[in-house]
Amino acid sequence: MSLLQETIQRIDGLQQDAKSEAQNRINNLVKPIGSLGKVENILVQLAGITGNPYPKVDNKVIIVMASDNGVCEEGIAAAPQAVTNLMTGFISEGITGVGAFAKQAGADLVTVDVGVIGEVNYDKILNRRIKESTNNMIKGPAMTREDAIKAIEIGIETARDEINKGRNLIGTGEIGIGNTTTSTAILSVYSGMDPKEITGVGANLTSDKLENKIAVIRESIEVNSPDKNDAIDVVSKVGGFDIAGMAGVMLAGAAYRVPVVIDGYISTAAAIIATHIEPKVRDFLICSHSSNEKGAATASDLLDFDTMLDLNMRLGEGTGSAIMFNIIEAATYMNNEMLTFQEAGIDIV
Amino acid sequence: MSLLQETIQRIDGLQQDAKSEAQNRINNLVKPIGSLGKVENILVQLAGITGNPYPKVDNKVIIVMASDNGVCEEGIAAAPQAVTNLMTGFISEGITGVGAFAKQAGADLVTVDVGVIGEVNYDKILNRRIKESTNNMIKGPAMTREDAIKAIEIGIETARDEINKGRNLIGTGEIGIGNTTTSTAILSVYSGMDPKEITGVGANLTSDKLENKIAVIRESIEVNSPDKNDAIDVVSKVGGFDIAGMAGVMLAGAAYRVPVVIDGYISTAAAIIATHIEPKVRDFLICSHSSNEKGAATASDLLDFDTMLDLNMRLGEGTGSAIMFNIIEAATYMNNEMLTFQEAGIDIV
Repeated sequence: MSLLQETIQRIDGLQQDAKSEAQNRINNLVKPIGSLGKVENILVQLAGITGNPYPKVDNKVIIVMASDNGVCEEGIAAAPQAVTNLMTGFISEGITGVGAFAKQAGADLVTVDVGVIGEVNYDKILNRRIKESTNNMIKGPAMTREDAIKAIEIGIETARDEINKGRNLIGTGEIGIGNTTTSTAILSVYSGMDPKEITGVGANLTSDKLENKIAVIRESIEVNSPDKNDAIDVVSKVGGFDIAGMAGVMLAGAAYRVPVVIDGYISTAAAIIATHIEPKVRDFLICSHSSNEKGAATASDLLDFDTMLDLNMRLGEGTGSAIMFNIIEAATYMNNEMLTFQEAGIDIV
Repeated sequence: MSLLQETIQRIDGLQQDAKSEAQNRINNLVKPIGSLGKVENILVQLAGITGNPYPKVDNKVIIVMASDNGVCEEGIAAAPQAVTNLMTGFISEGITGVGAFAKQAGADLVTVDVGVIGEVNYDKILNRRIKESTNNMIKGPAMTREDAIKAIEIGIETARDEINKGRNLIGTGEIGIGNTTTSTAILSVYSGMDPKEITGVGANLTSDKLENKIAVIRESIEVNSPDKNDAIDVVSKVGGFDIAGMAGVMLAGAAYRVPVVIDGYISTAAAIIATHIEPKVRDFLICSHSSNEKGAATASDLLDFDTMLDLNMRLGEGTGSAIMFNIIEAATYMNNEMLTFQEAGIDIV
């Protein structure tokens, strides 16, 4: 059995007893019932994931998937493709957005090269390069089905290795020039919406180039006819190594019962793939911010994500995951530090 | 000159040079321009407040103002009035929502009794009690003008004492059964909206009692005719000691150039008072979450607050302030940990 199949088979639902126990205690804490809103929901979800009504998230990591996209040939991105290589190195050194926010949140960073173009001279990058960039999806599949599975399994292995080190909270992140184009293609396939309605400017694409980006996405879908009933087909034809790798991280989180935080637009596209591979994965995902990228709200709606941060961010890398870690940690402090009325010596309120 | 007058006189605008320097560096960090959205705005504001383009927020405190409201006689609250006394003690012991979240955020708590009914047997409460509860505002002013000024000055003194200890980030919080009623009265005066449009359920008031709450607020405004051009008149007639105290904290933050975080609905009502005492205070305030209380969005709009957390919270105490501390800290890490393209050795991107 392949690692992917084995991982899917391990995935089960949330533990209802732990959820009920957590919910019951939350309802008795010294506060009006329901008054901590979504923070309460996070704790109940963590309890269901871990089986522990008093979960902790004191060992956090953000896994950043880095890769290039062949579709950049079509002029769909604002930045030159070489920026992927550059930023992958910078991310691994901690000098970018995700590095700053991860440090604030007390999280470690793992940067995985799944398909960056060119030499990468940084010690801290995990070299799992499948090949240098995907193919240009307007001319045919971005990658073979075998390479898509390989990318997913790299995500599974990376997450599994981190979980084996004791990680109890995983954030997703990515870097890859052109990946709002691939993400929008995936979103178009699953939402049924025309790319015109959901294509945004990514990393500051000028508006005169937006029509071209829309046309490239539309044509890539037409050329490849991805089968939405087969998520691996979709991600191989119009996705990227980074997105497939992130979907693998999500599958592993679900299989090994560790919560996985969704970052922004690209991460949400990966979640669409992961949950179409195995719908039970959804229960193990925690969303973070509402990205400012145009299609983000549509993508979140597809997954029934009720986003919690409204910061107008659109950087990716895992910046949203890192900020969200604080709120998830606050949810665990709620149950570990607050007392119930009974515990505080009050019989009735 | 009174402490209040002296404090108002100290308040000046933001330092434009520091703001420009911070904005310029943010624009050159290794990321697309503007891609960290409101987090970038926070850093620019902190620079303008402190005069330092590399501000830190490593010494945080939440000041919780506790007091009772005479209007509780009218049956406007879900909880019995004795809960104020109970919760004031619990807050000081760190076993409530704000205690849990403050601990997660690495912040200290100061609980100030400005007017709680009954004996309070907890060591950690700062006893600045003006009297046991305000008066019932449906029968006349909630407090004298002198007591309103006294409550504001208690807020100023408490914040000033904390700032003298080196605090560089202050959060506001409160406890006081009945204080969504007083906050809504203030909001009605300043928004011109009828209480029916902005009165919410507070701490889970049942819907059959909501009409009474609305009528009590409406009548309290009619009986007292507060002068909206005189914010001290408004807070004395239809406010509370807690709200006046929080307004004082905000005035002191502006006077001594330390950012003050707005918590939720009651805190926003206090900000309406503080900014009507001195409009320059607005620049020193950082909003946090969009409270689930009915009038919250209207209150935020009055102050042009663009809230950043969407958590369906409605607990108060300072819980929103504490969660927001993490995001403000992330903003400071952005400037202190990220490099610019130039610093990273890249000439042009």
